[in-house]
Amino acid sequence: MRAPIVLLTDFGDGYFQGVMKGVILARAPGATIVDLDHHITPGGILQAGYVLRSAITYFPPESIFVCVVDPGVGSARRRLLVEHPDGPFVIAPDNGLVTGLLRSWPRCVVRELANPAWFLPEVSATFEGRSRFAPAAAALALGARSADAGVVLTDPVQLDGAECRVSKSAIEGRVVYIDPFGNLVTTIDDASLSAFAAPTAVTVDTGRSFIVGLSRSYSDAEPGALLAYVGSTGHLEIGVRDGHAAERLEASIGTAIIVRKRTGS
Amino acid sequence: MRAPIVLLTDFGDGYFQGVMKGVILARAPGATIVDLDHHITPGGILQAGYVLRSAITYFPPESIFVCVVDPGVGSARRRLLVEHPDGPFVIAPDNGLVTGLLRSWPRCVVRELANPAWFLPEVSATFEGRSRFAPAAAALALGARSADAGVVLTDPVQLDGAECRVSKSAIEGRVVYIDPFGNLVTTIDDASLSAFAAPTAVTVDTGRSFIVGLSRSYSDAEPGALLAYVGSTGHLEIGVRDGHAAERLEASIGTAIIVRKRTGS
Amino acid sequence: MRAPIVLLTDFGDGYFQGVMKGVILARAPGATIVDLDHHITPGGILQAGYVLRSAITYFPPESIFVCVVDPGVGSARRRLLVEHPDGPFVIAPDNGLVTGLLRSWPRCVVRELANPAWFLPEVSATFEGRSRFAPAAAALALGARSADAGVVLTDPVQLDGAECRVSKSAIEGRVVYIDPFGNLVTTIDDASLSAFAAPTAVTVDTGRSFIVGLSRSYSDAEPGALLAYVGSTGHLEIGVRDGHAAERLEASIGTAIIVRKRTGS
Repeated sequence: MRAPIVLLTDFGDGYFQGVMKGVILARAPGATIVDLDHHITPGGILQAGYVLRSAITYFPPESIFVCVVDPGVGSARRRLLVEHPDGPFVIAPDNGLVTGLLRSWPRCVVRELANPAWFLPEVSATFEGRSRFAPAAAALALGARSADAGVVLTDPVQLDGAECRVSKSAIEGRVVYIDPFGNLVTTIDDASLSAFAAPTAVTVDTGRSFIVGLSRSYSDAEPGALLAYVGSTGHLEIGVRDGHAAERLEASIGTAIIVRKRTGS
Repeated sequence: MRAPIVLLTDFGDGYFQGVMKGVILARAPGATIVDLDHHITPGGILQAGYVLRSAITYFPPESIFVCVVDPGVGSARRRLLVEHPDGPFVIAPDNGLVTGLLRSWPRCVVRELANPAWFLPEVSATFEGRSRFAPAAAALALGARSADAGVVLTDPVQLDGAECRVSKSAIEGRVVYIDPFGNLVTTIDDASLSAFAAPTAVTVDTGRSFIVGLSRSYSDAEPGALLAYVGSTGHLEIGVRDGHAAERLEASIGTAIIVRKRTGS
Repeated sequence: MRAPIVLLTDFGDGYFQGVMKGVILARAPGATIVDLDHHITPGGILQAGYVLRSAITYFPPESIFVCVVDPGVGSARRRLLVEHPDGPFVIAPDNGLVTGLLRSWPRCVVRELANPAWFLPEVSATFEGRSRFAPAAAALALGARSADAGVVLTDPVQLDGAECRVSKSAIEGRVVYIDPFGNLVTTIDDASLSAFAAPTAVTVDTGRSFIVGLSRSYSDAEPGALLAYVGSTGHLEIGVRDGHAAERLEASIGTAIIVRKRTGS
């Protein structure tokens, strides 16, 4: 019963996440339940996918992630169980949430989550977190075999925009997360940046301003200065020392960010 | 020590809920503590009662619910321990919070929570969650006998407004909860609706607009359309597909909602 | 594995706190993790120190507190492990957060938290909560010896403003916390007040209005009336019965509050 069940939702404040915990504890007494994040922007599928990928490697390998960012709840969209050969399970709606995860986990197995024995007998058309996702996680925590979840799928929904696009002259990405301090986290990853140009040889175009070169940390910048740096998840971030970049740049989830090579002068 | 202690408060963000957990763990080491909801509108007694009823059946029967929505803290209001014969305990101030629960639990026993041995030695006049409710929950989790809580009460405070009023021509209710997606949950329950008229034979009056007929789920409606449906707790809800009903209708907790029979045409 | 690990951060809503839990559970399976407060005002060092002191005595003595309110992350500031002889550990950046705690714990030992074996192998310059503070807490929970954390420090950073200043004619303090109901908690403590004058013999100057005398609880005041009282943490608070003092007085963290002796009349 040691496998943590980790919740990632857009339920915000309120009791929906609490009901999921009740369902889990009623089926798997003593389960360890962890709140990863309940404040994904409502319907923010790509944002949830980013958070999932950024967090999952820090959890015990036996963890069971339950992702409920599901604007299509009640429609015919499928449900997924993703299994990494070395460990974690991920339960999610088949709406592209796991797009990035599947690219970084080429060896994972994707199944449809469709075993009615894993669900509550009475299924809600509007709250599957309660009636399907939570009890399925409890089933896995109790040792259910993943092969019993459903058939292997080869065509899970994939979304554009989870990763950056690299060309010879530019890397195009977008803001996928805004952290509590207002820093903008982008889909532009460290590996793409390193292959593109030296940190001092780039400019970052935020739409509102240009940042020349990358910094190593906030203390490299003057108070109030805008800076670009590779953040703690290995992605390009844009911040303001002692300030709030999202407000300064009027940026939001989805804002385009472009890295270009500095023109010589 | 398996009985989960489930917290329901209007403490919002902040450390008051955390202190309650400290008190519980200091008395009942290893206790399982669950955050049900800390974002009840401050003083929202009926809203808390709705959340309690909506969640309680999904939790293990041995759960101990601790409800601290208590605008009268420091006054002479009593404290309650409600015990269901099959299971859960509910600790709450005697302010009407459990009105709806008592109606749905005719066989429950209500006692005054008044045993000083269950409280912290030093009692705060403004934070009984810490000094009385949390340690009482720990006492129950450790196996204290409910009969030792205090005398049986036959007159707990009852509030109007927890349930809808049904007449021949209309069902009158009100908004008791707004979910994270802006959907309005009303006090109008499925049983009252079913006995009143067929789903296609009603109109729902929100004060701002009329909705004709009930839908089954969001996918029954056009994007942006207003719809009424029976939600996951068995109550009439009003939503906007891919939108935010509370903002659209400028509705809030307490807004009147009336179901009428469609006039033939 | 019973020692609760208690998290106190300014991470707000979002997944940073969740990643810390992942790191802890990966190193200390089955650890009990408690969210004390993640909504400290960003960079609110004194506020965090107040919350820590207000909460710590209610937790089991073996608890391990992890405080990540750390505007200087990435700079050369040190990290601290504070150990009380009777119990709790406190992990915090060396930025003054523990100023008040150290004054109330004269017998505690302060060490630099500098043992690389307690940290993740890969350290982030911007997220030490993940790479250093969380794994250090796990190490302590697993039984690591505090003496192995690092050298004893005699010069931890101390901040002004954590406590009130008492003179013959006045006690000067400030708002250090605003509770979920809008009540203003000040740095003016009960002992200073008691030594200064009788409760009926003081006026409280909030900058916007004067309050004559101290009340015992909200029910002593008329609805809508402003009142001053000693709150549940033993500090002077300012509230409005059935109202929101912070809004009424346009007060915020840091607002000066002065207690004076009533002039005879």
